[in-house]
Amino acid sequence: MNAREFRRRGKEMVDYVADYLEGIEGRQVYPDVEPGYLRPLLPTAAPQEPETFEDIIKDVEKIIMPGVTHWHSPYFFAYFPTASSYPALLADMLCGAIGCIGFSWAASPACTELETVMMDWLGKMLQLPGVFLAGEAGEGGGVIQGSASEATLVALLAARTKVTRCLQAASPGLTQAAIVEKLVAYASDQAHSSVERAGLIGGVKLKAIPSDGKFAMRASALQEALERDKAEGLIPFFVVATLGTTSCCSFDNLLEVGPICHEEDVWLHVDAAYAGSAFICPEFRHLLNGVEYADSFNFNPHKWLLVNFDCSAMWVKKRTDLTGAFKLDPVYLKHSHQDSGLITDYRHWQLPLGRRFRSLKMWFVFRMYGVKGLQAYIRKHVQLSHEFEALVHQDPRFEICAEVTLGLVCFRLKGSNKLNEALLERINSAKKIHLVPCHLRDQFVLRFAICSRTVESAHVQLAWEHIRGLATDLLGAQKEEKADRKLK
Amino acid sequence: MNAREFRRRGKEMVDYVADYLEGIEGRQVYPDVEPGYLRPLLPTAAPQEPETFEDIIKDVEKIIMPGVTHWHSPYFFAYFPTASSYPALLADMLCGAIGCIGFSWAASPACTELETVMMDWLGKMLQLPGVFLAGEAGEGGGVIQGSASEATLVALLAARTKVTRCLQAASPGLTQAAIVEKLVAYASDQAHSSVERAGLIGGVKLKAIPSDGKFAMRASALQEALERDKAEGLIPFFVVATLGTTSCCSFDNLLEVGPICHEEDVWLHVDAAYAGSAFICPEFRHLLNGVEYADSFNFNPHKWLLVNFDCSAMWVKKRTDLTGAFKLDPVYLKHSHQDSGLITDYRHWQLPLGRRFRSLKMWFVFRMYGVKGLQAYIRKHVQLSHEFEALVHQDPRFEICAEVTLGLVCFRLKGSNKLNEALLERINSAKKIHLVPCHLRDQFVLRFAICSRTVESAHVQLAWEHIRGLATDLLGAQKEEKADRKLK
Repeated sequence: MNAREFRRRGKEMVDYVADYLEGIEGRQVYPDVEPGYLRPLLPTAAPQEPETFEDIIKDVEKIIMPGVTHWHSPYFFAYFPTASSYPALLADMLCGAIGCIGFSWAASPACTELETVMMDWLGKMLQLPGVFLAGEAGEGGGVIQGSASEATLVALLAARTKVTRCLQAASPGLTQAAIVEKLVAYASDQAHSSVERAGLIGGVKLKAIPSDGKFAMRASALQEALERDKAEGLIPFFVVATLGTTSCCSFDNLLEVGPICHEEDVWLHVDAAYAGSAFICPEFRHLLNGVEYADSFNFNPHKWLLVNFDCSAMWVKKRTDLTGAFKLDPVYLKHSHQDSGLITDYRHWQLPLGRRFRSLKMWFVFRMYGVKGLQAYIRKHVQLSHEFEALVHQDPRFEICAEVTLGLVCFRLKGSNKLNEALLERINSAKKIHLVPCHLRDQFVLRFAICSRTVESAHVQLAWEHIRGLATDLLGAQKEEKADRKLK
Repeated sequence: MNAREFRRRGKEMVDYVADYLEGIEGRQVYPDVEPGYLRPLLPTAAPQEPETFEDIIKDVEKIIMPGVTHWHSPYFFAYFPTASSYPALLADMLCGAIGCIGFSWAASPACTELETVMMDWLGKMLQLPGVFLAGEAGEGGGVIQGSASEATLVALLAARTKVTRCLQAASPGLTQAAIVEKLVAYASDQAHSSVERAGLIGGVKLKAIPSDGKFAMRASALQEALERDKAEGLIPFFVVATLGTTSCCSFDNLLEVGPICHEEDVWLHVDAAYAGSAFICPEFRHLLNGVEYADSFNFNPHKWLLVNFDCSAMWVKKRTDLTGAFKLDPVYLKHSHQDSGLITDYRHWQLPLGRRFRSLKMWFVFRMYGVKGLQAYIRKHVQLSHEFEALVHQDPRFEICAEVTLGLVCFRLKGSNKLNEALLERINSAKKIHLVPCHLRDQFVLRFAICSRTVESAHVQLAWEHIRGLATDLLGAQKEEKADRKLK
């Protein structure tokens, strides 16, 4: 395919993309296919001779689309939102064309420098303490990671290196293994599974701190765990505080947890993967109070800030904590500016070596929406979740299971877990909307997350009527069953 | 921005992309900017009100492009190639529009299933042993990672878990730390820095095996290291063999190394990040012989197979080795099919949780080029590198420093390292072409890598004339300097 044909096909693809997103409401949100559906529809091997674009785009509609879960449908209320905006799509096209691999400053100066500045812009939008910004000569700064899981892992590994070096400096005889064996990381029992995974990968113990009645990590429980472990000769070194947990969007008490970490000299990583985007609104910024105690902070603009995946924003107070943990400098990656202290080589800030020009997406989105446009977007989602919450409250058969702060509503039918599992089963089998569940303590709970960029009040209302209807059917069927059983 | 405006701006962007790639030869391959150039050109914070697309696209040319290293210029001969093809750009547009996060089968069945089938297609192109393919009911299979560094790390972590569990099963009293402390991984002294980094992250020792005169890891050196370490009570558990090293594209002797790993029950990971693409040509397939001994194999279609970054292809013989190492199953990610044994949840195969629909790029590229088109592309690059090699041979002032097998030529001026450093400095200051150096033993060497999709014989000839001219200037200047010094 040459440039001429690309111009033609590219424009057709632009229309296909626009048609897809404009018409997404008309597609069933969750697919009908069964596992293994795709293989029989494709040849067993790649073709020897070239095929045409027409053949392929026909197959997209025939073979791919029937197996797609439509994450951007206004009837998608599962997981958390994933960003999709036109400015980000445009920026990604440009990113693909430039196609640089930005592992060092020299590999493409614009790629590195725009990222540093965009992370400062975003930090300012959140009113992050200045110490997290790169500025002209700061010690901190931001980096785009691929996902919050990677950010957590990078923070844990940096903390592991830091504490190990510190202890070895004090007692030169200590081996790394002897130290690592005693290290303990902590997170609330509501933290995301990727935190546990980071512990596994890093080879350190991870202990779950029991959360309180509002599913928040509090001072007392953390302090208790720290004291117990220290008494046993273990070494607390890392705490993850979550702002906006995956299960129910609860918030660890940062103003309590932060000072403890500070006093105990333990690395505090704040994971606000979903909720972070909301902190650009002054009325939600208080949820971030206490971040000044953190060593690293992360959230995902690719969730709720209209910057398409992948774009996970991570800041550290001391960039040398990251670069010190990972820095290796082979000759083929050296360049003349690298020891000048003026530049950033982002390869030392992340796990992979290669990286795309992702800051273009931030730049396009921030400029084409403006801060006010982004704030309006967040506020609309929060309003819709409160609208759904109010609907649930109006039906006495249902209950709300956790405080609704942002765009997530946890709810259930009053009654057994089995009843609620049956309700979810009916919802997801009907495939008019899509939800996923969670466990809150021993309760099976349904999560209703406001996700799509195009979701409106009408969709929320329709979704609720649909859920209510299915609940009525389910409860009716159960009554009949009971009556039947009595008759027998 | 609504769909209507996206249609318009998207088509303008398609033209911008086509213009950029068609006109890239006219842009200076390496930028003139100094560190810190960008910040003063941008506002200090994001705008409050939305700006127009026109403003942004003007700034792309004014602010971004002057700081871009043009990786797809036919005068870019640095690092290794990075894929850029029109079919992949089209597929990425579609990937962005669908915008699903494919962490589980249910999260988007097509995303998972197309990846499995595409990895089988690619495995067949390489004539990988069938045991690496997923097929209908295989134990192996492929996964797209973000980069070769991640693949190496994932393999090392899986091997670490496997050996730890195995030793703990034999001696239940052993702690993980006691085992990890004794684990040793091995790679040639020519292996990529990301291997050393994987060792650091995994908390295990990594030992460099001295390579032979052709920069290859051989049986004797590896066996010697294994015996020495076992005698000291250490536990060899992981070997990385490199096919196509970064410095000089040398090949570890897989037919020697493989059987040793097999006998010693050590996980063998084969890293063919750059060279792997060439194995789709029958005449280069012999370089992969011995892969049948490997537990995992990886290469980057995003380097040399026209599938744009990121797309790093990794296969394992036993998928349970990966899933067993990382599997955690919170309720909010559970779905009804996951325990059926029929499906793949790729989140257990990789470090991050989230993942894009990257297999679309493979599908588009494989179909629109056909295997023959891809083979022709590889052959053209190899031919151009031999053409450059022949030019170097014709000039007695220069020498070739390593065997030219694929698309990389390592060369230098006969003489001191200082002389060659000065030559590279002149080349990269002139900015007509872009190269990076490497060290081979104690020699400073220039790497000439055939990179661009559009590079032709004429570019290679021009590049060589340019290098020769700069060498003549340099040698002349040195002669004058010497003469001056004698006169003083």
